Amino acid sequence: MGKFILYNYFRSSASYRVRIALNLKNIAYEYRAVHLLNGGGEQFSEEYRKLNPSREVPTLIHDGKAIGQSMAIIDYLDRVSPNPRLFPEDPFQRAQVMQACEIINSGAQPVHNLRVLGQLGERFGADQTAKNEWTKYWITYGLQSLEDLIRPHAGKFCFGDQPSAADCFAMPHFANADRFEVSMSAYPTLSRVRTSCEALEAIKKAAPSVQPDTPKN
Amino acid sequence: MGKFILYNYFRSSASYRVRIALNLKNIAYEYRAVHLLNGGGEQFSEEYRKLNPSREVPTLIHDGKAIGQSMAIIDYLDRVSPNPRLFPEDPFQRAQVMQACEIINSGAQPVHNLRVLGQLGERFGADQTAKNEWTKYWITYGLQSLEDLIRPHAGKFCFGDQPSAADCFAMPHFANADRFEVSMSAYPTLSRVRTSCEALEAIKKAAPSVQPDTPKN
Repeated sequence: MGKFILYNYFRSSASYRVRIALNLKNIAYEYRAVHLLNGGGEQFSEEYRKLNPSREVPTLIHDGKAIGQSMAIIDYLDRVSPNPRLFPEDPFQRAQVMQACEIINSGAQPVHNLRVLGQLGERFGADQTAKNEWTKYWITYGLQSLEDLIRPHAGKFCFGDQPSAADCFAMPHFANADRFEVSMSAYPTLSRVRTSCEALEAIKKAAPSVQPDTPKN
Repeated sequence: MGKFILYNYFRSSASYRVRIALNLKNIAYEYRAVHLLNGGGEQFSEEYRKLNPSREVPTLIHDGKAIGQSMAIIDYLDRVSPNPRLFPEDPFQRAQVMQACEIINSGAQPVHNLRVLGQLGERFGADQTAKNEWTKYWITYGLQSLEDLIRPHAGKFCFGDQPSAADCFAMPHFANADRFEVSMSAYPTLSRVRTSCEALEAIKKAAPSVQPDTPKN
C-alpha cells in the first residue's frame, strides 16, 4: 500500500473528516501536526506551501505524492483502498453521497473557517461575539440542508446502515455545532446518525479531543 | 441516456461549471432558469427546495432524479457519459484534478456568493464597495492557489492538453475575476489556460452572456 502521512490539525474539521476516512478503512498513517495559529500559522511556511499551495490542512502524502482538499483525499482513498467503500458504486447513489458531503464541504464550513473569521475581524471589526454568531448561522444552514437531503435515505448513518463519506463530513460538522452551542434538537435524522457515528471506534479515535497535538489541559 | 434538465442561473458560477461539463460531453439538456434575485430568489420556493434542499443552483435532473452541487453533478456526468472523461482514471491524477476543482469549489467561491454577501450587509453593514473588496480578496486567493497547484501540470489546459473538470471550475472563476476587475496578469499559467478555454465552442456556449435567461441589454 505504501506509506501514508497526514499533515493535519486536531481541531480542523477537514482534517477530522480525513482521519475518520482513514480509520474506517483501517489505514495506518503517520500524524504530522500543523498548528494553524502558532507563529501566525505553520501552514503559511514556504516548506508547507510546497505540499499544499492553498496553505491549508489536511494534506495527505501517499508514496511521496501530496494531495490536498478533504474531498479529493477521501475520494482517492476510496480508489486505492476500496474496502470498505465510502462512496457507493451506483452513479446516482454516489452523487447523492457526494452532494451531502458538499453541503458541508463547500456550502457551510468554508464560510466560517479561520481564514474567513480573520477577514471579518480585519475588514468589519467583528469581535468574538459577532464571529460566533456568524459561525452559528452557517452551521445551522448546513445542518438544515443536510437534514433535508438525507431524511429519505438515512438509516443508522446518513445513507443506509453503513458509514459513507457523508458521515465523514457530517460528524465534524456536529462537533462544530457543539463547540458553538448550536442545538441539534431540530434535526432528528442527524441526531440519530450522530449517535451511530459516536459509537464507532474509528470515529472516536479521529476526534479532535484525542489527537497527538490536542492540548493536554 | 435519458433526459437531462438543468435548473440554473446564467450568472451563477456553479451553474456555468456544469454547463461547460455538459457541453464538453455533448449532452443536450433542457435549460430551466432559476432567478436568484427576483421575488427574493426563486431558489427559496418550496417547490424548488424539494429538488435542492440547499436552495441553490444548479440542480441536474436525469431520468427524473435530482442531483445538487456542481462537483457531485460533474462527477456523475463522468460516470453516465464518460466520453470525454473530465476526471482521469489514474487515482493520483484524478485526485490532483479534484484538488484543483476544490480550490475554487470550497476554497474561494463559497466565501463570496450571494448568500454570504447578503449576510455581510445585514450583520456588518457592508456596502457595495466593501462587498466588492471582499470578493476580490477571495478571487485573488483562488487564483494564486490554483496557479501554484497547476503550474507543474498545465499544458494548454489546467492538466495537460485536454480540458478536464479543473477547467470547468477555473473558467467561471476567471469570469468572476473580470467581473470584479481582478487582473490575471500575475498568473501566467492560468492566463494561458484561459486562452485555450475561450477558444472552445463548448465553453463559449456555456458563457453567462449567452444563456436563455441572460438579460437582453
